[in-house]
Amino acid sequence: MLLRLKMGLPQRQLDAVLAEARRFGYECSFLDDGRQLLALDGTPGKPEHRSRFEDLVGVAAVLDPGDARERHERAPGQTDHVVRVGSAVFGGGVASLIAGPCAVEDTERVIEIAKRVRDEGATLLRGGAYKPRTSPYSFQGLGRAGLEMLRAVRAEVGIGVVTEVMDPREVEATCEVADMLQIGARSMACSPLLLEVGKAGKPVLLKRGFGATVREFLLAAEYLLSTGNENIVLCERGVRSFDSGVTRNLLDVGAVAHLKRATHLPVVVDPSHAAGRADLVRPLARAGIVAGADGLIVEVHPRPAESHSDGAQAISVDELRHVASDMAALLEFDGRCFATQDLERASA
Amino acid sequence: MLLRLKMGLPQRQLDAVLAEARRFGYECSFLDDGRQLLALDGTPGKPEHRSRFEDLVGVAAVLDPGDARERHERAPGQTDHVVRVGSAVFGGGVASLIAGPCAVEDTERVIEIAKRVRDEGATLLRGGAYKPRTSPYSFQGLGRAGLEMLRAVRAEVGIGVVTEVMDPREVEATCEVADMLQIGARSMACSPLLLEVGKAGKPVLLKRGFGATVREFLLAAEYLLSTGNENIVLCERGVRSFDSGVTRNLLDVGAVAHLKRATHLPVVVDPSHAAGRADLVRPLARAGIVAGADGLIVEVHPRPAESHSDGAQAISVDELRHVASDMAALLEFDGRCFATQDLERASA
Amino acid sequence: MLLRLKMGLPQRQLDAVLAEARRFGYECSFLDDGRQLLALDGTPGKPEHRSRFEDLVGVAAVLDPGDARERHERAPGQTDHVVRVGSAVFGGGVASLIAGPCAVEDTERVIEIAKRVRDEGATLLRGGAYKPRTSPYSFQGLGRAGLEMLRAVRAEVGIGVVTEVMDPREVEATCEVADMLQIGARSMACSPLLLEVGKAGKPVLLKRGFGATVREFLLAAEYLLSTGNENIVLCERGVRSFDSGVTRNLLDVGAVAHLKRATHLPVVVDPSHAAGRADLVRPLARAGIVAGADGLIVEVHPRPAESHSDGAQAISVDELRHVASDMAALLEFDGRCFATQDLERASA
Amino acid sequence: MLLRLKMGLPQRQLDAVLAEARRFGYECSFLDDGRQLLALDGTPGKPEHRSRFEDLVGVAAVLDPGDARERHERAPGQTDHVVRVGSAVFGGGVASLIAGPCAVEDTERVIEIAKRVRDEGATLLRGGAYKPRTSPYSFQGLGRAGLEMLRAVRAEVGIGVVTEVMDPREVEATCEVADMLQIGARSMACSPLLLEVGKAGKPVLLKRGFGATVREFLLAAEYLLSTGNENIVLCERGVRSFDSGVTRNLLDVGAVAHLKRATHLPVVVDPSHAAGRADLVRPLARAGIVAGADGLIVEVHPRPAESHSDGAQAISVDELRHVASDMAALLEFDGRCFATQDLERASA
Repeated sequence: MLLRLKMGLPQRQLDAVLAEARRFGYECSFLDDGRQLLALDGTPGKPEHRSRFEDLVGVAAVLDPGDARERHERAPGQTDHVVRVGSAVFGGGVASLIAGPCAVEDTERVIEIAKRVRDEGATLLRGGAYKPRTSPYSFQGLGRAGLEMLRAVRAEVGIGVVTEVMDPREVEATCEVADMLQIGARSMACSPLLLEVGKAGKPVLLKRGFGATVREFLLAAEYLLSTGNENIVLCERGVRSFDSGVTRNLLDVGAVAHLKRATHLPVVVDPSHAAGRADLVRPLARAGIVAGADGLIVEVHPRPAESHSDGAQAISVDELRHVASDMAALLEFDGRCFATQDLERASA
Repeated sequence: MLLRLKMGLPQRQLDAVLAEARRFGYECSFLDDGRQLLALDGTPGKPEHRSRFEDLVGVAAVLDPGDARERHERAPGQTDHVVRVGSAVFGGGVASLIAGPCAVEDTERVIEIAKRVRDEGATLLRGGAYKPRTSPYSFQGLGRAGLEMLRAVRAEVGIGVVTEVMDPREVEATCEVADMLQIGARSMACSPLLLEVGKAGKPVLLKRGFGATVREFLLAAEYLLSTGNENIVLCERGVRSFDSGVTRNLLDVGAVAHLKRATHLPVVVDPSHAAGRADLVRPLARAGIVAGADGLIVEVHPRPAESHSDGAQAISVDELRHVASDMAALLEFDGRCFATQDLERASA
Repeated sequence: MLLRLKMGLPQRQLDAVLAEARRFGYECSFLDDGRQLLALDGTPGKPEHRSRFEDLVGVAAVLDPGDARERHERAPGQTDHVVRVGSAVFGGGVASLIAGPCAVEDTERVIEIAKRVRDEGATLLRGGAYKPRTSPYSFQGLGRAGLEMLRAVRAEVGIGVVTEVMDPREVEATCEVADMLQIGARSMACSPLLLEVGKAGKPVLLKRGFGATVREFLLAAEYLLSTGNENIVLCERGVRSFDSGVTRNLLDVGAVAHLKRATHLPVVVDPSHAAGRADLVRPLARAGIVAGADGLIVEVHPRPAESHSDGAQAISVDELRHVASDMAALLEFDGRCFATQDLERASA
Repeated sequence: MLLRLKMGLPQRQLDAVLAEARRFGYECSFLDDGRQLLALDGTPGKPEHRSRFEDLVGVAAVLDPGDARERHERAPGQTDHVVRVGSAVFGGGVASLIAGPCAVEDTERVIEIAKRVRDEGATLLRGGAYKPRTSPYSFQGLGRAGLEMLRAVRAEVGIGVVTEVMDPREVEATCEVADMLQIGARSMACSPLLLEVGKAGKPVLLKRGFGATVREFLLAAEYLLSTGNENIVLCERGVRSFDSGVTRNLLDVGAVAHLKRATHLPVVVDPSHAAGRADLVRPLARAGIVAGADGLIVEVHPRPAESHSDGAQAISVDELRHVASDMAALLEFDGRCFATQDLERASA
């Protein structure tokens, strides 16, 4: 049940509505910043309750859930919500390249990678201090020490940093270093993490779970949006399929095209985790861009074979140059723009 | 077990090898045109049999299955096998557009569509006389009457025709009309049909089953190739996934990119059946082309709402113009070429 | 559009209805034996046509497709349709065991297997003369020679035979030998084969495609039923999933339970193809029976390692004894009955 | 790389090994309680490092990862690890029934349900204070207030309580009330939560993610086991498939049978979330038990239609009686035992 409250409601009347809702056992949450749409539970509500609410002076209308627009929905004619992270711009006809190693392992090496991907057009560095791994015996990332490395790289190279956070208790520490927080595919449905990250206020890169529907993906974004944080970038990174013989996951380009229609939030594509093999990163990156993506996130390793994790899918810096060049040309073909460090300085 | 036979083997020695194989109960088939690779059953073979074959004068080597290259495999450095169907060219840096209605329903209407898709750059008309349908109570196509319509359209419009055949008993009749035979997704694994179509000698458009792995798809092509027919075009048209809320199937662009590496056969993409909705046909078409596809097959209907089947995914002729224009530009970006009626006349 | 015709319609009035339908371009088919439900195309039909039909004297009502019950549907309170094949009985509280080798390879060996599975309680022998295989270089079955072997086994052992037919042109020859025709998982959606097999009049074992939904499975049965053949046994044999590391397919026991509610047709389970490994055949067989299956079809090989195909999933005769014993006990637990040769003789 | 250390290693020698490992940049973790198996990163390790470790006095052998048994693996001949939670016993030939509402909504109602499921044979009450929901606007559970209700129910009814925890920061508070902590399907891959829950020392019910492979499921258990907590019960609750028309998820009975072979940990089945509809809970429960499950977890609601969440799949208490009766009979058929309150008191 949704209550549409009257505009400019006195606090006393609002309190009366909330008190009544709690008395009936409903959980209340506002769906909008103007605090006019009050959601009660997401259920249609009992008939006797609906009629009681209709009697309250503060209530303009009692609606079914879904009658009002969810926050992620693109209203007819609504333009893209543009997310800016340092020099990186996502949406509104501008796309950005995020690149970097899977995990941060060594400060000097990460500085080297960061400089090289920046020189190829990346405006954000990716790199994991906390790595979600299937096995407890696999390399789990360096944790806080990894965050310190990212801080050093950021200062040295002058590039923004996006890094994954898996534990709500680590959000604060991660925020001190990161320009953008990543929610990984395995954590997409962890609502305590979503709420904590949303509240932190930093831009968020939300990856689609490999077993999640597009609707579930959008509702995970809705958890973030419900905290008032609007700077959410969605990331399609491939889903599970019955055929894992060719690519590790199946890149859902139809979802990318659909998301550009269904939501005003920007969408990027991760061709590295979709492919799971370096030689298919470039064609998947191209496919993502022409399907409408507002950016790419790519794993790069100067010497892929030496990576501690996910080496098979990391591309070399030379290959990144091809990916960035394709991206720039395909964006230009669509009258879109590739965000670069120069662009940002020029406009500053 | 595979036998590699000696070059220039006298018939008598070949007969001896075959007789021995049959005496042991093996099914024999040649894997190559030069008749040097003789496959026995696809099994490793019994040790006592292997040693017996090694003793035969005609046998150069006894190998495990898989040691020799399958016919669809692209050898290192091997160029594309180019398939030509009238003005249409698939492979070798040339791509073609196939377009038309789902089913042929009415001669005049199909003539109208054929002229219009030809004018937008299509060099082959698609259109079903036999329609595979989930329900026996759905429109199954007009059958032989539909074939006659296609014959009339072909004569009137001067465009090649590709049409599906589902029944081995209809291959001969379909060949009289069609320039290219289509094996549909539901028939991909029907070996009697594959063999009958292969033997008919016409170019074949082989669609991937929506539940088939890429390996199974390639081996279905191998059935066709095993008949000596080399003019096979593979078609990726989306696979089943756990999320059917956004697109009807999930277009496997990674498979397109992989196939361009793994086989010398050309690959086209069917964005219409993947999307299942008209508004996503264009982005999926674009994604397919930049992933490396040698062409597109698109459902078009002048008045989509009037279609007897699959109306939701048919695009209008205006939208086809955008798809063709994107296709031409993206091919040019890659230094590839869009096959047109003019091109063919010029090169004739 | 569906027309419900008046009872006892004179031929002249029926002809008038059919003529009108064809004039509008609809394909007609009767949904019921009493020829009262006439389906036109499966589409809702144009409004102008609906009103025209409503004016015809022979037409009782113009309905939407789906308004009338499909043939496979279980009406409220309707009992099982019982399918009998020799001593085997499927449905109505009786279940049967089908067992045998994957492919028939050698008459004496098949006779040996047939005697042994009969002694363990099987009332039908399975065994393929035509084997659908992924690769053209794999053993494809012995074809007509395999059928002759089955004929010999049938005569010698006195057990009914179920064997797969893949090619509509082989239905007649297969009928001469088989007591029951099998439609394999890869052919489930091949309507020409379904119609040809349906018309042959023999009982049919219809396997679910590994990528087919339950609805598609039921509509494949509907193709068979639409020929007037009612002796259809459905077979759940596992579907594709994202995890192929444990079992080859995922046995859909929920589908078995659902099918027992949704249709009056009997349902059997194939634990061998679901498991893809011998050690899990028995637990999957048990799960299928307690979920409501009316029988099992199991691959057996006296010396599994020597099988030409699918050896890994064939169980030994000793293991079949355990499967049959479990099956009998679990059926008894439900007050159901295990069909045996003795049972049939007793009731004869 | 794995190091097998010598038995009874002096601390000084152990420190030397660890120091060397860290100098090379490896993350170290012990795989066993005896601290003889030291895992370095899960990678094979560089050759130069392997030879260096082989030179260290404390090192008995340098192994590849995987050479030593993981903790969840069932060694040849190893018996079940038996997990006891109050009267409930899982494994070793004893199975238990967990039942209760989806969410705890009202103390008196939960007490009523708890008494009734206890009377039908349940030895643990399930009920969520924290509910993972797809939408932020759906009922999320009562949180701490829900935990207080569970505490009251536990005291009043004398039945153990299993409840889900989603947030590592709530583990401690949840432990004060719960006899067993549940990790839900959406949190299965959240390693910070797994580690926090593992360390809390309470028995854990670990649900398989609906998009997780069996291998990933076992490695999630391995995270728990790596904390030294051995009382882990695995729960199969259905996985995503391409067909969501019949059941909400596809119950993987093959996985149940496989898990009973692959691990010594007990396995239970959740037929409610697999089915997603009340009428299929009983057949899926039966299938799970005969496939080898050591228990069931079932959603029950005295008046299912009034439930705040997941009402469609909750069964009535009458239906629970049938499920429990089937479960007892099928366990007896296998010579296994149904844990009851009485049984426990008798053996106490």
